[in-house]
Amino acid sequence: MIETQKALAFVRNSLQEAEQYQHACHVLNYDLETICPPKGMEEQGEVNAFLSNQAFKIVKSSRFIKEEEYLYEHRNELEPLDQLMAQALHRDYLRSKNITPAFNKKISLIFNKSFVDWVNAKQASDYSLFAPSLKKVRDVDLKIISLRDQKYALPYDALVDEYERGMTCADLDKFFNACKETLIPLLKKITASDKKIRTDFLSRKVPLERQKAFSDYLLKLIGFDFTRGAITTTEHPFTDGLGRNDARVTTHYYENNFISNLFTVIHEGGHALFEQNQPGEDYDHFIHDNISYGMHESISRFYENRLARSRSFISFLYPKIQEFFGDIFADVSEEEMYEGINAVEPSLIRTEADELTYTFHIIIRYEMEKLIINEKAPINKLPKLWNQKYEEYLGIKPKTAKEGILQDVHWSSGFGYFTTYAIGNAYNAMYLNKMKEELDVEKLLSIGNFAPIDSWMKEHVFATANRLPPKEWIKGITGREFTPDDFLTYLVDKYSALYNLK
Amino acid sequence: MIETQKALAFVRNSLQEAEQYQHACHVLNYDLETICPPKGMEEQGEVNAFLSNQAFKIVKSSRFIKEEEYLYEHRNELEPLDQLMAQALHRDYLRSKNITPAFNKKISLIFNKSFVDWVNAKQASDYSLFAPSLKKVRDVDLKIISLRDQKYALPYDALVDEYERGMTCADLDKFFNACKETLIPLLKKITASDKKIRTDFLSRKVPLERQKAFSDYLLKLIGFDFTRGAITTTEHPFTDGLGRNDARVTTHYYENNFISNLFTVIHEGGHALFEQNQPGEDYDHFIHDNISYGMHESISRFYENRLARSRSFISFLYPKIQEFFGDIFADVSEEEMYEGINAVEPSLIRTEADELTYTFHIIIRYEMEKLIINEKAPINKLPKLWNQKYEEYLGIKPKTAKEGILQDVHWSSGFGYFTTYAIGNAYNAMYLNKMKEELDVEKLLSIGNFAPIDSWMKEHVFATANRLPPKEWIKGITGREFTPDDFLTYLVDKYSALYNLK
Repeated sequence: MIETQKALAFVRNSLQEAEQYQHACHVLNYDLETICPPKGMEEQGEVNAFLSNQAFKIVKSSRFIKEEEYLYEHRNELEPLDQLMAQALHRDYLRSKNITPAFNKKISLIFNKSFVDWVNAKQASDYSLFAPSLKKVRDVDLKIISLRDQKYALPYDALVDEYERGMTCADLDKFFNACKETLIPLLKKITASDKKIRTDFLSRKVPLERQKAFSDYLLKLIGFDFTRGAITTTEHPFTDGLGRNDARVTTHYYENNFISNLFTVIHEGGHALFEQNQPGEDYDHFIHDNISYGMHESISRFYENRLARSRSFISFLYPKIQEFFGDIFADVSEEEMYEGINAVEPSLIRTEADELTYTFHIIIRYEMEKLIINEKAPINKLPKLWNQKYEEYLGIKPKTAKEGILQDVHWSSGFGYFTTYAIGNAYNAMYLNKMKEELDVEKLLSIGNFAPIDSWMKEHVFATANRLPPKEWIKGITGREFTPDDFLTYLVDKYSALYNLK
Repeated sequence: MIETQKALAFVRNSLQEAEQYQHACHVLNYDLETICPPKGMEEQGEVNAFLSNQAFKIVKSSRFIKEEEYLYEHRNELEPLDQLMAQALHRDYLRSKNITPAFNKKISLIFNKSFVDWVNAKQASDYSLFAPSLKKVRDVDLKIISLRDQKYALPYDALVDEYERGMTCADLDKFFNACKETLIPLLKKITASDKKIRTDFLSRKVPLERQKAFSDYLLKLIGFDFTRGAITTTEHPFTDGLGRNDARVTTHYYENNFISNLFTVIHEGGHALFEQNQPGEDYDHFIHDNISYGMHESISRFYENRLARSRSFISFLYPKIQEFFGDIFADVSEEEMYEGINAVEPSLIRTEADELTYTFHIIIRYEMEKLIINEKAPINKLPKLWNQKYEEYLGIKPKTAKEGILQDVHWSSGFGYFTTYAIGNAYNAMYLNKMKEELDVEKLLSIGNFAPIDSWMKEHVFATANRLPPKEWIKGITGREFTPDDFLTYLVDKYSALYNLK
């Protein structure tokens, strides 16, 4: 017992120190992405790498590993949250124990080069400029998989486990097959329907200053705490929890696309609500980053899609839109606003997709990644495969690599991430149904009252997010096993109504 | 020789590492002052203190001190810039040799807490919320003074030496007495004059977006390099060089006070021009922060006051103002614009003061600081003293602490800084006269051509700023000893003309 307490004290002190470095890294990275001038980036990147390495040295020291492994072995002597901390540290240790510093450095260099190559390739819309790096990234991922002690049925399972622990290709195949079974016929019906949806007003010019004021209004409305967070702009929006009382939301204003910012702010605001409302004890026990990517994404997409794109919420928001932008949208009715925001239109760019076709973009990436990792598909064949899949699922074909295989940055640093976007949608449809058993969600949305929803999320969704693996977490909230059914029923109901389908 | 080179290598490596921590501290501090939410400040302050202490530990290690002292003793074996580095390190060593890491950390924590308290106190306009912290800051300063080996005639001399090395209360008393002798009668004549200056247009509403566009224009005009710097907003504008290629300017937009931003941007832009144009070798030899505060302030005030408030520059700027804000100032003539911008009016807020009454604000702070440090005046008596001095020198009295003793942030991190603002005005009046011997400054300003002025500044003012102590530096530029005469003559000439005084 005394030995365990000593190890605990050592581990906690070490993590405390590592966290100070990591906090600084978050601030530096946030600065880099939001305001750092171009010629200042290199030096700032070097400082970030230096501090990151200081943190790394703390948790990779042989003393630290010895103590955290001791804690793990004696975890039943610990209080529950320290047990979770010990498990998370042990998992991190196993994940990287066979990765030598030399190989680790090689990985960094390959990913850095790959990112630069991707930027250049996308700019030139020339896949051949990215292919050699992409092959190296794939080989690095395969090497990382082979270095794992843990055995997986399929190589890709190891990558899925990295982002959504406990999930496998078997789970995902079942999930995405169900999606295809329902969504392919649904999309066919929609494209065949003669419903006309007005979208002309979506590209009207809206002054940035007024969009900014609207962003602040939206964040306040959904419950974002401005004393513990801030919003600013960046190229590719993200949210980062810099500290326990500091959640940073970023957005990107487009003069001719005001709904882009509207839903970006609510999406990123959703991430931030989790950062601001997760249990303080999770910070005290260093497990505040223990949530999976799919779980985090479920929350942002819950606020963005399940809530903010709903008929009830638009009925609340419509008069506000008229208040902020009345001179611009005076001729647009509430119904037209709702329909325009939710119009389904197969398109090439994932980040611009509507709620329904979005899942196809993820299915395509999932199938591509399985081919790349499990089947070692030839790298030079990938653009052709990509284009075939877009034609198959969405009936459209990219004309350029820029709007096709080169559109996303993710592959420049490995595979396995994309699926979390789709899984998140399924989680939140499940907990939305559970929430509806206890709250009149539609009523609350129609009067713009988020407080009871936020409280419910805090109590049911956020409270256990860092403490349970995804499958146990969603079962804990809903009493049911993970299933795509709620998500698919939601889509069928919503779009059947919108497009007058039988 | 070999030992010296070994010591040099060790010192340089250590400084390189310390600089990475310091870079991070600058970014954290910049973030804290520009966007960090109120409740995130405490944690960010702690991280800042932690990193600052890591840097401090490097330069306070016994090995480092041994090596840098060795270098100092053998400095004649070093090349000139390394000699300067060795001298600066030796000076730092002497200044802090009796300050333990524990005490240093305590200082950081007190200053951070004091800053937060000042923010809250100013917001509530309640001095009592700041007084306990202010007392701690004063006691820290007294403790720091008592820990110095060097003996000073007065305790406050130690603080002056910190910001403006080589200067003393004796110098400053002489300087400010000369100022009072000239400026008190000048101000009396002005307030008694029957000259009517139109100022109604100064408080017209100017949309923030257009002020922002104007700021970018102004920074570009004076030569600011946007690939190596950025501008954003803050409560109390400042400039910080985060790295060799990264100078950050901040400003504050007031809808009803457009000239506030105009001159803030040019003032802060002046600081940034120094950051962007100091010799690269000064970075290589770790002496890039060796400039005194008064010297730095002389540059910002040179651009803001000597240049941008001049008749010649306003004749260039007037059509630009009409271009940016024509609908707002169409009825204002060029002469009215010049006069309005330069109108003299005793006021309570230092940062809003005109060029003439500004010096009185500094005299008041100088006299207050001498009372606080040399006389240990009771902290609870300070607001009363403050108000009395405003009445004595400017004939007006603050009604609230917010527009009185709480207006400035500076005292939350110690005393001795304010005087550098006034000294800077005297330096730049001296080098303006020198510049005028070589350049047709009025002509250049009247056509908005800053390039030759910037080049002259780079060659004469910036080149030696890190390399010489203030008194030698100004003598090197002008060939004359430091004197308030140029500054006072400048003010008398300018305001006698403006107010038709005999």
